[in-house]
Amino acid sequence: MKLLVIRDRRINYDGSAIRSHWAYRNFGVLGDSIIVFRGKCDVKVEEMIDIEDLRANKEIKSDDMVHYIIEIFDFPNILLASTLQKLFIAKLCEVLHIWGVETLRKGDDIYVDDKKLSISIATVSPVSMKIHIGVNVKAEGVPKGVDAIGLKELGIDDVEDFMEKTGRAFQEEFLKVKKDSMKVRWAE
Amino acid sequence: MKLLVIRDRRINYDGSAIRSHWAYRNFGVLGDSIIVFRGKCDVKVEEMIDIEDLRANKEIKSDDMVHYIIEIFDFPNILLASTLQKLFIAKLCEVLHIWGVETLRKGDDIYVDDKKLSISIATVSPVSMKIHIGVNVKAEGVPKGVDAIGLKELGIDDVEDFMEKTGRAFQEEFLKVKKDSMKVRWAE
Amino acid sequence: MKLLVIRDRRINYDGSAIRSHWAYRNFGVLGDSIIVFRGKCDVKVEEMIDIEDLRANKEIKSDDMVHYIIEIFDFPNILLASTLQKLFIAKLCEVLHIWGVETLRKGDDIYVDDKKLSISIATVSPVSMKIHIGVNVKAEGVPKGVDAIGLKELGIDDVEDFMEKTGRAFQEEFLKVKKDSMKVRWAE
Amino acid sequence: MKLLVIRDRRINYDGSAIRSHWAYRNFGVLGDSIIVFRGKCDVKVEEMIDIEDLRANKEIKSDDMVHYIIEIFDFPNILLASTLQKLFIAKLCEVLHIWGVETLRKGDDIYVDDKKLSISIATVSPVSMKIHIGVNVKAEGVPKGVDAIGLKELGIDDVEDFMEKTGRAFQEEFLKVKKDSMKVRWAE
Amino acid sequence: MKLLVIRDRRINYDGSAIRSHWAYRNFGVLGDSIIVFRGKCDVKVEEMIDIEDLRANKEIKSDDMVHYIIEIFDFPNILLASTLQKLFIAKLCEVLHIWGVETLRKGDDIYVDDKKLSISIATVSPVSMKIHIGVNVKAEGVPKGVDAIGLKELGIDDVEDFMEKTGRAFQEEFLKVKKDSMKVRWAE
Amino acid sequence: MKLLVIRDRRINYDGSAIRSHWAYRNFGVLGDSIIVFRGKCDVKVEEMIDIEDLRANKEIKSDDMVHYIIEIFDFPNILLASTLQKLFIAKLCEVLHIWGVETLRKGDDIYVDDKKLSISIATVSPVSMKIHIGVNVKAEGVPKGVDAIGLKELGIDDVEDFMEKTGRAFQEEFLKVKKDSMKVRWAE
Repeated sequence: MKLLVIRDRRINYDGSAIRSHWAYRNFGVLGDSIIVFRGKCDVKVEEMIDIEDLRANKEIKSDDMVHYIIEIFDFPNILLASTLQKLFIAKLCEVLHIWGVETLRKGDDIYVDDKKLSISIATVSPVSMKIHIGVNVKAEGVPKGVDAIGLKELGIDDVEDFMEKTGRAFQEEFLKVKKDSMKVRWAE
Repeated sequence: MKLLVIRDRRINYDGSAIRSHWAYRNFGVLGDSIIVFRGKCDVKVEEMIDIEDLRANKEIKSDDMVHYIIEIFDFPNILLASTLQKLFIAKLCEVLHIWGVETLRKGDDIYVDDKKLSISIATVSPVSMKIHIGVNVKAEGVPKGVDAIGLKELGIDDVEDFMEKTGRAFQEEFLKVKKDSMKVRWAE
Repeated sequence: MKLLVIRDRRINYDGSAIRSHWAYRNFGVLGDSIIVFRGKCDVKVEEMIDIEDLRANKEIKSDDMVHYIIEIFDFPNILLASTLQKLFIAKLCEVLHIWGVETLRKGDDIYVDDKKLSISIATVSPVSMKIHIGVNVKAEGVPKGVDAIGLKELGIDDVEDFMEKTGRAFQEEFLKVKKDSMKVRWAE
Repeated sequence: MKLLVIRDRRINYDGSAIRSHWAYRNFGVLGDSIIVFRGKCDVKVEEMIDIEDLRANKEIKSDDMVHYIIEIFDFPNILLASTLQKLFIAKLCEVLHIWGVETLRKGDDIYVDDKKLSISIATVSPVSMKIHIGVNVKAEGVPKGVDAIGLKELGIDDVEDFMEKTGRAFQEEFLKVKKDSMKVRWAE
Repeated sequence: MKLLVIRDRRINYDGSAIRSHWAYRNFGVLGDSIIVFRGKCDVKVEEMIDIEDLRANKEIKSDDMVHYIIEIFDFPNILLASTLQKLFIAKLCEVLHIWGVETLRKGDDIYVDDKKLSISIATVSPVSMKIHIGVNVKAEGVPKGVDAIGLKELGIDDVEDFMEKTGRAFQEEFLKVKKDSMKVRWAE
Repeated sequence: MKLLVIRDRRINYDGSAIRSHWAYRNFGVLGDSIIVFRGKCDVKVEEMIDIEDLRANKEIKSDDMVHYIIEIFDFPNILLASTLQKLFIAKLCEVLHIWGVETLRKGDDIYVDDKKLSISIATVSPVSMKIHIGVNVKAEGVPKGVDAIGLKELGIDDVEDFMEKTGRAFQEEFLKVKKDSMKVRWAE
């Protein structure tokens, strides 16, 4: 699994990065990958993946976010995509905890003091599994009615360092999951 | 996913419960299930699943443990089995955290103060995925050289309550993972 | 598997209901489901699934039909979709037989006295299996050259009762199939 | 799918024919196949597949049965195995109906006048799906408490003809299922 | 696996034949198939499958080619599609070798005297695996900078005979692969 | 994919190396791997995988062979295992060709001057795909009636060099197959 942290520029997230091969098309990164970047978030309705959000006419937006786009080329399976997503979110909470931030994970959502820190979606394409995680840098530009919080409010000011370390934590977690899957004999 | 917490008796774990349909054969629990029970742990060499342990001639034992046997009848996939296992372990840490216990998760191992609280394995049978998690009640009877800790040392004295609540937490987590997997449209 | 019988209004079938998540998008029904409704049938060419029909320039229409849209979120597999479809059709014939109607099933078609009672299609989306079954209420509005028959001609006047009972029969059949799949050990 | 009807000799069924490649090992029949034969039925406990039967200490036996062993080398999937089984049983009922025998199908069981005509099991091996169907020729030698019926009691005296025609009906049904699965475009 | 060699007319290849069911839609050939035809090649950008080519702004064209469109309705799997493609290319080299032509295979490319003889792509649709192989008849009309060679330059003048024999070689190779997959028992 | 060439000692092949995780159990090589070693070949009947050989009571033996044991932890699929096997065999022929040896491949067999150079088998375990290829070093100790040939007779005297180079050729071929599978968009 390759990790690419994009530091030199901002990339806005409109939802289209959830399509298969986005990492390869845009950065030449082939195979399993995590791309970490920073930018505005404003998901176009036609790119929305969560039908629950679509049914509720929700908006998904934030002025400044750290984004993770993860693609895994195993047999596409919605249950595996959803499980990997929750594990990455749990991992993110564990990293934040080490940094002294108390979080509450509810499925794929992270809350700090009842305020929403993150958004996330996981799905399959016909060739891969795709996960998006977005973490607010500041609680600005979020939809009305959402009580949000961002890294800045949590005292995490070095955003590039956060991008690097969490990206690496995701990569290590996945490699551990993968490695463990190949060292066990099957059961009767 | 059905949850069965066995309160009225002790069941020792010798590793054979990792086989497919153990829950149905022994308790008539059909389909996806979590069986929680308490008993000694002493895994027979011929039942050991982790080849790394086998290669290292490790012993897997403890005098008193809470055991979880999870079986999921989705398409058997070692990567999914391994991912689900890590997610359940992360969930266990989250529950412990709410109860004031500080843990460190390393893959599928849980540590408290550098002491090992748990053991776990995940694999597939030809029809299902199987996960075992064992949590020390007391740090007794563990292999030499293992610095262990148990629930009692952590101040968790109501073991039945722990079994019930963690079993339910696993069940809820899995149902959330499953539900989310069916509410997202596929990506191009 | 959830069953929803829509009684309070008519819904026309133009073929678009064969897309994944139609039940969730339109009725909030998540996961495996059977939606039963009544309405006109006129499948748009761009929604036609059966390439044999497309090649033959067939029309698929009827003025009044009972429709079943079934979605199953197991690993998408065209052979499983096609097998489930035939089983549901066979089940429908069995129910009709109990009601005194003699049918002849040819694959996914049902005939009574050499007259066509039903249409059906089964396919996969990238996340699910989808089946449509349509049963004529009256033999009106069908394509030229098709000798059709409807429930009314068979003496089945209580269409809502028919919708309810056949929907439930499908649901029970699927649950039996699913249950049986999890109570058998694998063979060498 | 190849069909082999064994006419020249009796073969007893002890359950071991449910293993993968039985048709190839014993008759050189490679690939998807239906083998039809006649013989005693007495399933050894260690060959029993249905854990429900094992839990209930059921015996599975009959003095004279027509047996079908079906093997399909598609991606092994317990749900597909179970669905195919029900479809074949439904087909058998349809053939009997044409011959004037009124049956009642309950899942994978066939009843005539509340008497049990057949037994069946479906499972997977690591490489294939396997189905066994057994139809009583006479209601003799069945377990105590089972009210059975056989082909002879139904007026079907030409057992070889029955073996041939039902074998062919199964073959045709499967080929139709398979053919249909490849003539439909996928749905969004 | 059906083989259809189209002799009576030319068909140009613009890339759209890579879509699922092309053989059935256009020639009524159902199921696993190889369609061999001859015609110009000029792949439209929107039909290009190889993202590496897209990223490099490559053109894919030739004035006269023998084309093979192969479709296989097994469980769609990109690794299997890619492996089958390489095997067919290796087979083509073996046939050419028997005819006295020395080739060098690099993955899915065939070179003769460092000149490119062929193009190829392999991918999946949601229901099948698809492979295109194109072999230059003459080294004309190829993109600038590509040093190409064609069958004519290799002394292969009877193009129809080449189409027939290579088509049959592919068919035989696939049937051998398939047959072998069903005659081996599984390993522990 | 890891490559391990065992140079310092001989290992006899009795067929048991075809089991899953053999490379990890014996050499600590985790994940996709090719293990190349040299030794006697004498496959025990209970380890034979090819049922065709079992039915024909064939012996599989040779006094001195180069062995390749390949394990791939993708979704186990007998068709993929069989296709990979043929591709590796074709690759071996290509390497031999570069070295001036004229071979004829028939499926998974290699002939030189109508003499058999190699044996091979491919199958699945419940967690992986496994391939064995054996190449005679000398044509000695082979079953009666088999007209064999070995590397020595072909003028290939540096067996270690052969092991190294062919092992690397297999590794490169697989990596190319894998890489290509992830750089193509899916087709409609």
